[in-house]
Amino acid sequence: MPAAGAALGIFAAIVAINPLVVFAAEHPNLVISASDIDAMRGAITIPGRFRTAFLASRTAVDRALQAPLVVPVPADAGGGYTHEQHKKNYQLMYNAGVLYQITEDPKYAARVRDMLLAYAELYPDLPLHPKRRPGANNPGKLFWQSLNEAVWLVYTIQAYDLIRPALTDQEAEKIERGLLRPVVKFLSVGSPDTFNKVHNHGTWLTAGVGMAGYVLDEPEWVEQALLDLDKSGKGGFLRQLSTLFSPDGYYNEGPYYQRYALMPFVTFAKAIDNNQPERGIFEYRDGIVMKAIDTTIQLSYNGLFFPLNDAIKSKGIDTSELVLGVAIAYGETGNPQLLDIAAQQDQVLLTGDGLKVAQDLDARKQQPYRFKSMAFRDGKDGNEGALVVMRQQFSGDQALVFKPAAQGMGHGHFDKLSWQFYDRGAEIVTDYGAARFLNVEAKNGGRYLPENETWAKQTVAHNTVAVDETSHFDNDLGFANRHHPQLQLFHVDEQIKISVADIDSAYPGVTLSRTLALVNDPQSQTTYAIDLFDVTADKPRKLDLPLHYNGQLVDTSFELRGFTDRISALGEDNGYQHLWLKARGKPDSGLAQVTWLSDNGRFYTQSSLVDGKTELLFTELGANDPHFNLRAEKSFIARRDNAREHTFVSVLEPHGEYNPAREFTLQAESRVKGLIHEVVGDVRLLAIERQNGNIQLLAFNSNPAATQATENTFKFGGAEYAFSGRAKLFQISH
Amino acid sequence: MPAAGAALGIFAAIVAINPLVVFAAEHPNLVISASDIDAMRGAITIPGRFRTAFLASRTAVDRALQAPLVVPVPADAGGGYTHEQHKKNYQLMYNAGVLYQITEDPKYAARVRDMLLAYAELYPDLPLHPKRRPGANNPGKLFWQSLNEAVWLVYTIQAYDLIRPALTDQEAEKIERGLLRPVVKFLSVGSPDTFNKVHNHGTWLTAGVGMAGYVLDEPEWVEQALLDLDKSGKGGFLRQLSTLFSPDGYYNEGPYYQRYALMPFVTFAKAIDNNQPERGIFEYRDGIVMKAIDTTIQLSYNGLFFPLNDAIKSKGIDTSELVLGVAIAYGETGNPQLLDIAAQQDQVLLTGDGLKVAQDLDARKQQPYRFKSMAFRDGKDGNEGALVVMRQQFSGDQALVFKPAAQGMGHGHFDKLSWQFYDRGAEIVTDYGAARFLNVEAKNGGRYLPENETWAKQTVAHNTVAVDETSHFDNDLGFANRHHPQLQLFHVDEQIKISVADIDSAYPGVTLSRTLALVNDPQSQTTYAIDLFDVTADKPRKLDLPLHYNGQLVDTSFELRGFTDRISALGEDNGYQHLWLKARGKPDSGLAQVTWLSDNGRFYTQSSLVDGKTELLFTELGANDPHFNLRAEKSFIARRDNAREHTFVSVLEPHGEYNPAREFTLQAESRVKGLIHEVVGDVRLLAIERQNGNIQLLAFNSNPAATQATENTFKFGGAEYAFSGRAKLFQISH
Repeated sequence: MPAAGAALGIFAAIVAINPLVVFAAEHPNLVISASDIDAMRGAITIPGRFRTAFLASRTAVDRALQAPLVVPVPADAGGGYTHEQHKKNYQLMYNAGVLYQITEDPKYAARVRDMLLAYAELYPDLPLHPKRRPGANNPGKLFWQSLNEAVWLVYTIQAYDLIRPALTDQEAEKIERGLLRPVVKFLSVGSPDTFNKVHNHGTWLTAGVGMAGYVLDEPEWVEQALLDLDKSGKGGFLRQLSTLFSPDGYYNEGPYYQRYALMPFVTFAKAIDNNQPERGIFEYRDGIVMKAIDTTIQLSYNGLFFPLNDAIKSKGIDTSELVLGVAIAYGETGNPQLLDIAAQQDQVLLTGDGLKVAQDLDARKQQPYRFKSMAFRDGKDGNEGALVVMRQQFSGDQALVFKPAAQGMGHGHFDKLSWQFYDRGAEIVTDYGAARFLNVEAKNGGRYLPENETWAKQTVAHNTVAVDETSHFDNDLGFANRHHPQLQLFHVDEQIKISVADIDSAYPGVTLSRTLALVNDPQSQTTYAIDLFDVTADKPRKLDLPLHYNGQLVDTSFELRGFTDRISALGEDNGYQHLWLKARGKPDSGLAQVTWLSDNGRFYTQSSLVDGKTELLFTELGANDPHFNLRAEKSFIARRDNAREHTFVSVLEPHGEYNPAREFTLQAESRVKGLIHEVVGDVRLLAIERQNGNIQLLAFNSNPAATQATENTFKFGGAEYAFSGRAKLFQISH
Repeated sequence: MPAAGAALGIFAAIVAINPLVVFAAEHPNLVISASDIDAMRGAITIPGRFRTAFLASRTAVDRALQAPLVVPVPADAGGGYTHEQHKKNYQLMYNAGVLYQITEDPKYAARVRDMLLAYAELYPDLPLHPKRRPGANNPGKLFWQSLNEAVWLVYTIQAYDLIRPALTDQEAEKIERGLLRPVVKFLSVGSPDTFNKVHNHGTWLTAGVGMAGYVLDEPEWVEQALLDLDKSGKGGFLRQLSTLFSPDGYYNEGPYYQRYALMPFVTFAKAIDNNQPERGIFEYRDGIVMKAIDTTIQLSYNGLFFPLNDAIKSKGIDTSELVLGVAIAYGETGNPQLLDIAAQQDQVLLTGDGLKVAQDLDARKQQPYRFKSMAFRDGKDGNEGALVVMRQQFSGDQALVFKPAAQGMGHGHFDKLSWQFYDRGAEIVTDYGAARFLNVEAKNGGRYLPENETWAKQTVAHNTVAVDETSHFDNDLGFANRHHPQLQLFHVDEQIKISVADIDSAYPGVTLSRTLALVNDPQSQTTYAIDLFDVTADKPRKLDLPLHYNGQLVDTSFELRGFTDRISALGEDNGYQHLWLKARGKPDSGLAQVTWLSDNGRFYTQSSLVDGKTELLFTELGANDPHFNLRAEKSFIARRDNAREHTFVSVLEPHGEYNPAREFTLQAESRVKGLIHEVVGDVRLLAIERQNGNIQLLAFNSNPAATQATENTFKFGGAEYAFSGRAKLFQISH
């Protein structure tokens, strides 16, 4: 005790004499800690992934150092020169900072120092950015919006932390006074709306400000970052962690923004853990940070995220955010399945966790990552619907994504109960994602295009029912955010994955209820995706169920009337104005089949049970698009007009292969001969009759009160059947 | 001498006693010889590519042997069940035959024997195929056309040759009498038109019949195969070798059919070489077989063949025909560059040559294959135009394909002087290829679609001038086959690849002359594809120059008037009826720029010098296509109406990168600020002025009489310039 006290006395004395030097021993201590540095210095001498990554980074940074230092006066919006230059600058500062710590070569610290000094000259007199959105409350100074400025800070504060030991106190003071403190001030008390907002922009601002608090020894900033500017806990990082993710780690804007949101969460969490392990940030809310990382991985197929809501479709698990997330999660958990993902990412981070990943990949410790069938509950309490993922490896690698999820705020789409289907590496039943060309100046400055509102968000742009040519919630975002579907059933066994959900608020007076199931027939090695979409309305309505597909139409079992010389937009508004109507057909009562050939060389047939009053409309995207902003994607819409009660019954069947390179074509025709849909009390039946006479019969109990213990009996085709629980698949051979 | 005579005496005696046994010692001796077998038997005991391929083949054949033997009565057209089964049968017989020779396991020979006996039961009573084309002179019996029957024979005769030692004489006689002799008879004297035709169908028939001649010891068949049924040399294999390839090894139907045609050429040539080396078949016509193989490789980009004329676009160098071709060429020449192609093909043949390839790949003897800039002369005497390929590796991997080639018979397109451009692995300025879904029954039985005639062959479907909305030669194939462009210039140096060609027979009274060049600017690491298209007409004409592109339109430097609610077909006929007119623009005199983003993530800007009277029409394919047979591809058409003399001047510039996965966008805007086109006497000038003021000035002497020794001087921008030879690139810095 006395010794500790004495030590503390000395410590305090030093602080009093030279406050800046005292904390020098603690640098770096954000994502990378001083002990990480020791391990990293050792690792670069040993051949392996880490050394390779180090050499590559050094080569790249050395090349970048040959270019002159440029800190331009901000002028351009996203994608423009000054925007990109400031992005390059923070990336270079961060990378050079890391190299300084690993190599101790002063040239790396010198460039960071000079750049920070240049920013410290520029920043104090900067006005708001000239390209800020007029009237918006989120302007930046270096960038057009404060979000980018906060990202800049998250990188730059780490760079500063990494090179702080190389600075004189005078230099440090100049940088802190001229740059870091003003940026922090601007992004915290100067941007209260965004800082306190429970939203990913807020996470970036609180992460930057909180990390600056650790580095500049300003505990008050850390407190504000964690708990809101007024420290009430109404906003701030902890609130964001409690609210923005569901208990299953699902981020309510969808996978694309979940991936983006992850970066400041994992970065700041790691910094908190290094600086204040006593906070137990990784245990917070039953380990929500780790769940969020894992769920981000789960929401991908063949390396790419499910493109739900506003999403750019080429984003996948190799994104830098998830590389960091996987490294941090591996550092924390040591779960060898994460190494499988890290191997696919094929990027080694120069951090302590990155080193662990690299060494354990070198030692071949990875195990196959297991993608699960799971209903990811939505909403902070997990009771606002769910995003359902049903998967199987069955003569291919199928995923069926069902979206009875909540709206997900401003980036959400009006697509309740929509679905997507993936098979053999490809997206088969598609989601348009966002209408945006990221950072392409000529395309609306690289921001979301007007067509994101007029098309991509609209109901008809998705694979779900639109009523009377309007969109869900009548496109009222506020209303949409307050309503959500209910998940009624989610059941998984070897042969069946099935989920039921409904919503009665998407349209006044209308209840939408959908059953989606993946079932498989081991005999024929066939998978079927079953879709039963029930609509009940207060009065006769026009019901449209689109199916957006990837590929080329091959055949229909009914006559098509093509519009050949001249085509028109299908409708006037709510996305319909963007669809060219290319052909229509009205199949007779019975089975209606549409076959297309997807880019993965496989055939897909959608078989529907129709009533003679259902029209099929074949469309192509691109009407009312004078600037060629939309991709020319294809869909067919099942339209049932004047219906009060209607069930769309259909089955999607992957089959065959088209291989012109090897010159063979297999099974280009569907093997589905008939569908039977029956409701027998609580038991609902969907029978798929194959060309060979065999029947796949899906039976499920549609009463939400049913349990795994419920005993069900029913008659079908004159025979008695029984099963326990919620669902069963019967295979009837003839 | 006496000893030899005595030996011969014994030999003759044996022949007399048992004629069928005598030749048994010579089996196999077609593509695979008895000495190959010895080497192969040794090689399968040693780890390496050959053993791996052997094990894979054995596994596949063993699995196939578990299925029952099925020789169905012919019923279906291409893609249908019986068609595919007979294809599977000949492939299985060939593979099992090879395995029999390598392993000496009688089970392989037994299946081939049983299958041949089943065919011998079936064949004699077969009528012409029920799905033959009515009225056509090429029906088959097992297949709908004799072509497939000949392919069947080429495989089957090899299988028979391989297992002949395992047969009793009675079995052999039954197979020869019931099957092989009738098939040969049907395909030779029974199909004289096709057998004698100097065309790839004829090559398959002569190859099958000739090889059967070697195996069944019928020298007469060999003679007929080589020299026409009447042995006049007017038809037959040698005539085909002399006529179907140009002196540069270019096959006049284009790369897709060159690849296909190769199979019987190399197969039969190898069999001739093994049986009658004294014929020197590989030296025939200055080594035309080897040239044909090499040219097939040269006519590819990133592994895929240039899709000229009727071509299915996924066909590439890994096609089985070229795997065999490369193996045979390597066996003959030992050229280590061929191993590079073999490595990309990644398929090891179980033949003697395949063994050499496998062993030398195992020994890492390959050297990089060199793709060349070359004018491949067309026509049997090399004087019927050329297919010009200009290549460079310059900040990417560019290929410019220019097509002043001859028509190329029935699979040729009406696309004189068309071009294509490739960059960074992708087709940028595109050719539609064929309108066909190979073997997809629902798409016109898997044959060429009607749209192959109405769209794919038409001039407007290509990147060349169409006059008055009609196609070259007015779609008259006979006339087209008798006329061809003239190649006027082909020059290659480090910075310039340039070619000039013209034609005055595509339209009466109209001369078309085109200059295409690839030039590069090392300073900015930029490549430009320069296009000068001169049209001289007898009277005012409507001139359309389409550019078909891969990607999404990003921007135009001029106002577009989009047709938004309603679009119509651009024209009535000659392919125009298939184009939707989506927007039009009439740029002011000066520079008109169109920028698109290609699927390879790179931007491309076409900068044109326009005269204020040129309209740009933006189209999408798909009008008058009630069965959805066409792909929805994009183009823009420069239209100059009422012109007697006009030059379309344009420059294509690849630039920047769009990388939404990594979230960056570079140089989305063109750096071309202006174009200047001048003619100073014989010297033609095209200057590209960049945003930074620098100028790339291409000067070339357009007088066909000019040589490498010609001295040229000209004035440009007030300064004097001089160069020797045909072309030079001047870089003028400001």
